Amino acid sequence: MKRFFLEIAYNGTPYHGWQIQKNANSVQATIQQALSTVLKEEIAITGAGRTDTGVHAKQLFAHFETTQEIDTEKLKFKLNSLLPDSIACTSVFEVAIDMHARFSATSRTYEYKISMQKNPFLTQFAYYFPYYLDVDLMNKAANQLIQETDFSCFSKSKTDTFTNNCNITEAHWKTENDILIFTITANRFLRNMVRAIVGTLLDVGQKKITIDAIPNIIVSKNRSEAGQSVPAHGLYLTRIVYPFLKKIND
Amino acid sequence: MKRFFLEIAYNGTPYHGWQIQKNANSVQATIQQALSTVLKEEIAITGAGRTDTGVHAKQLFAHFETTQEIDTEKLKFKLNSLLPDSIACTSVFEVAIDMHARFSATSRTYEYKISMQKNPFLTQFAYYFPYYLDVDLMNKAANQLIQETDFSCFSKSKTDTFTNNCNITEAHWKTENDILIFTITANRFLRNMVRAIVGTLLDVGQKKITIDAIPNIIVSKNRSEAGQSVPAHGLYLTRIVYPFLKKIND
Repeated sequence: MKRFFLEIAYNGTPYHGWQIQKNANSVQATIQQALSTVLKEEIAITGAGRTDTGVHAKQLFAHFETTQEIDTEKLKFKLNSLLPDSIACTSVFEVAIDMHARFSATSRTYEYKISMQKNPFLTQFAYYFPYYLDVDLMNKAANQLIQETDFSCFSKSKTDTFTNNCNITEAHWKTENDILIFTITANRFLRNMVRAIVGTLLDVGQKKITIDAIPNIIVSKNRSEAGQSVPAHGLYLTRIVYPFLKKIND
Repeated sequence: MKRFFLEIAYNGTPYHGWQIQKNANSVQATIQQALSTVLKEEIAITGAGRTDTGVHAKQLFAHFETTQEIDTEKLKFKLNSLLPDSIACTSVFEVAIDMHARFSATSRTYEYKISMQKNPFLTQFAYYFPYYLDVDLMNKAANQLIQETDFSCFSKSKTDTFTNNCNITEAHWKTENDILIFTITANRFLRNMVRAIVGTLLDVGQKKITIDAIPNIIVSKNRSEAGQSVPAHGLYLTRIVYPFLKKIND
């Protein structure tokens, strides 16, 4: 038995998220089906994490196992021919049998894109928010998130995780042309966390709340203290780091 | 009577091109309808040129006339609220009564985008062409197009124009990440011309024809001598120059 990693990118617009569900179109099911067709055996894949309906991924890894001899370049080519335009397989490679797409990952990075001008090319790819924002304040607030603590305040209630502690190591805003981009990295994220954080930082940028409110929101562990979630279509999973994958990540 | 220019950008995907047609969704009709609603009078707009079904525009100007007093900022805001996500009005401004969106334009620039890797975010925005291309040869061939001559060889037959002469002043390829971008500027373009030129240059890049074939194709004035047209969704109208509009164009 050998284990392989797939490196995947997808436009989340037509999917009900990553995870397989009954009666809904998911990225995971679409890839499993294509992979099973190519390899002529039933294949299950395990992803690095889940993305919600409409969320995009520029980089997501998934693993699968098979006893077959695999020509990784050929598999990648065949997979891309079979997968819809909205999903691309960017690489396929063998890993040690104990490397796990989800549990071996040490960090995840997300980006959230906000379009400050009406842009017909970004309808599905950025959140259109044409209101005044103090980006400097939003960066100061983002900086307060860089810590390891319980981030329940930004999590959808009733998640099935045993702890709500996350170690956020990067959180900042930058402006590129008329697009505002928020980048955030952590060892793990709670359900809906990035979108709740972005909504809270938009409240700071609009001066609805002050920077000083951020520590209180975190301490409260209460989702209703934080801001509203922003829409899914501005969110991208952009980078997953595995210590054993130096080449891909650098 | 006063004349106004609209500066427009649109995602051409949902439209059967710029021009009004019966029983088809056009950009021109969509804008006219929104403008007529806002101004509460029947408004006709004249565009700088036509784009075919699926072709995008990052900058297109159109003019209209009215006897009403116009607050241009307010009009732009109302128009954008009414227009679908796929069309943005980027500015509205008054011009002299004899300035004409089509006839006063002295040059048009188009870009054609080719994605060399499968990219789920560019499905509607670049032509996926994952084959070897010699970009250096394509640039040498493009350079041969920079002249004023009869370009019938790149035109759909039976156009209603009195001359097929065009003055091409810029034509080159550049690479940005995995995207190849062709930029071409001329005083005017014939129907389907840019897509036929790109198809011909792809033949050069794949070494199906040599650079030396280009002058012969032009002299032939025969569309069947040139290469196949590439798909519409990689094409963008990007810039229209009016001598009286220094600020917008610079």
